[in-house]
Amino acid sequence: MNFPEKVSLNGEILNTQEAKISVFDRGFLFGDGIYEVMIQLNGKLFHEQAHLDRMKYSLQEIDLNYDVNQLKDKVKELLKANDLIGIDCLIYMQITRGTAPRKHSFPIDIEPTCLLYALPKEFPKINNSSYNVVTQNDFRWTKCHIKMTSLLGNVLANQFAAENDAYETLLIRAGIFTEASHCNVFFVKKGVVYTHPANEFILNGITRQLVVKLCNDLNIELREEGYPVNLIEEIDEAFLTGTTTQVGVIGKIDNQVLPNRESAGPITKRLQQAFSELL
Amino acid sequence: MNFPEKVSLNGEILNTQEAKISVFDRGFLFGDGIYEVMIQLNGKLFHEQAHLDRMKYSLQEIDLNYDVNQLKDKVKELLKANDLIGIDCLIYMQITRGTAPRKHSFPIDIEPTCLLYALPKEFPKINNSSYNVVTQNDFRWTKCHIKMTSLLGNVLANQFAAENDAYETLLIRAGIFTEASHCNVFFVKKGVVYTHPANEFILNGITRQLVVKLCNDLNIELREEGYPVNLIEEIDEAFLTGTTTQVGVIGKIDNQVLPNRESAGPITKRLQQAFSELL
Repeated sequence: MNFPEKVSLNGEILNTQEAKISVFDRGFLFGDGIYEVMIQLNGKLFHEQAHLDRMKYSLQEIDLNYDVNQLKDKVKELLKANDLIGIDCLIYMQITRGTAPRKHSFPIDIEPTCLLYALPKEFPKINNSSYNVVTQNDFRWTKCHIKMTSLLGNVLANQFAAENDAYETLLIRAGIFTEASHCNVFFVKKGVVYTHPANEFILNGITRQLVVKLCNDLNIELREEGYPVNLIEEIDEAFLTGTTTQVGVIGKIDNQVLPNRESAGPITKRLQQAFSELL
Repeated sequence: MNFPEKVSLNGEILNTQEAKISVFDRGFLFGDGIYEVMIQLNGKLFHEQAHLDRMKYSLQEIDLNYDVNQLKDKVKELLKANDLIGIDCLIYMQITRGTAPRKHSFPIDIEPTCLLYALPKEFPKINNSSYNVVTQNDFRWTKCHIKMTSLLGNVLANQFAAENDAYETLLIRAGIFTEASHCNVFFVKKGVVYTHPANEFILNGITRQLVVKLCNDLNIELREEGYPVNLIEEIDEAFLTGTTTQVGVIGKIDNQVLPNRESAGPITKRLQQAFSELL
């Protein structure tokens, strides 16, 4: 993992080591901000508008006034400054409420802080990994639909995976799989695909939305229902979705080896193939 | 609300406008940090050790290795630099995991970031305010015992109070009052004091702990039980506790005017008096 060479901070292109914010930025004191991660692939920003629309939604949910349309030009400048025009890369965008004396409630009339950075990244046409995942109680808040920077819950869940040689932690709320620390999760049982409904318990991933649509297109039965932990032994296939993970097979959940550990099961394979055609 | 003149950042005393951190500080990207607020009163740091012990506990809970004992000297330097030796003031201390390329799980071998600042503040001997409070569903995570900087939940709850001309928002989880956005809460009914047990649903405030002890000392019956919302009409007295709020009367909850709105009820008064003698 490396730092980018240059970042965009409040519209200025800066060398990363010079890109600094006030210690009174509410992003630093309160985690009072939101973010998006998108990718540039084959010369195009993959579903840029969907990411900007979701950012707009997160901003509304935390009552932060920022015009996301200005990000399009800022992203172009950023890519140019980093010699990443047309190069496959990941683009990170974060807006925080800005700098003010510390007080929980919102300050009035301050400028939001905008950070953008990009890093080159290669994406396989199809993600052929098979991931081991672990499970943990979903101790996060009940506004998981907001893509916020108050991420300590997700950080701790992801760390739990790292410490257990797993790629991800599946989170369980009231006996139901919700999502993972930075991915959504899908299960297949007897030809039916299950994923948690897009409510306050999950972040409605752009890749998740695309896979839901692909199920429709491919006439694969999809139920937006949380999959219950006690039916873990009946899982035929399972996979993660995410902007950088794309569609990634789950081979093992805790000690439960899934039937599709060695290669993607038939439904996952169809979805991976169809997804790769969108890229 | 003002900024302090000088802050302490990673052991250096800096003018506030020069006190900046990397945009890759995990405190900024992930809210990956913890904090404490303590006060200096009548020439003494009020329960400094209790604050440092709780900070140590929060650090342990998020697996962040930082020796809190070094903060004692740093606080002295900070107070000196701000001409606050012996002056009543508030002291803010924050430790984040430090600066690294963005990845949810913890980086290895990086230096934590330490921010300290102090602001002069007058504290009444007894807080004679009567606060209006509102109520809201407690949508925060279930590790509220950690004093973390991923505070967007508390920010939104506090903002809800501000927008409703209230001082605080009481949070309700499964029909039970847990605490407020930055205070603990106590209720008195028929001579018995109720406050939520110090578990994962509340931050166990230093002032809360002192008031629990005072109840014992004064032979006031205290039950560490969450007070149920449906018994709101039976409340005789209610009060908030917090490092800067001290012991503050609640006069009104939503539209429910409490019997002690005009002046502190008998038990609150005894506790306020006893608390003032600790200062």
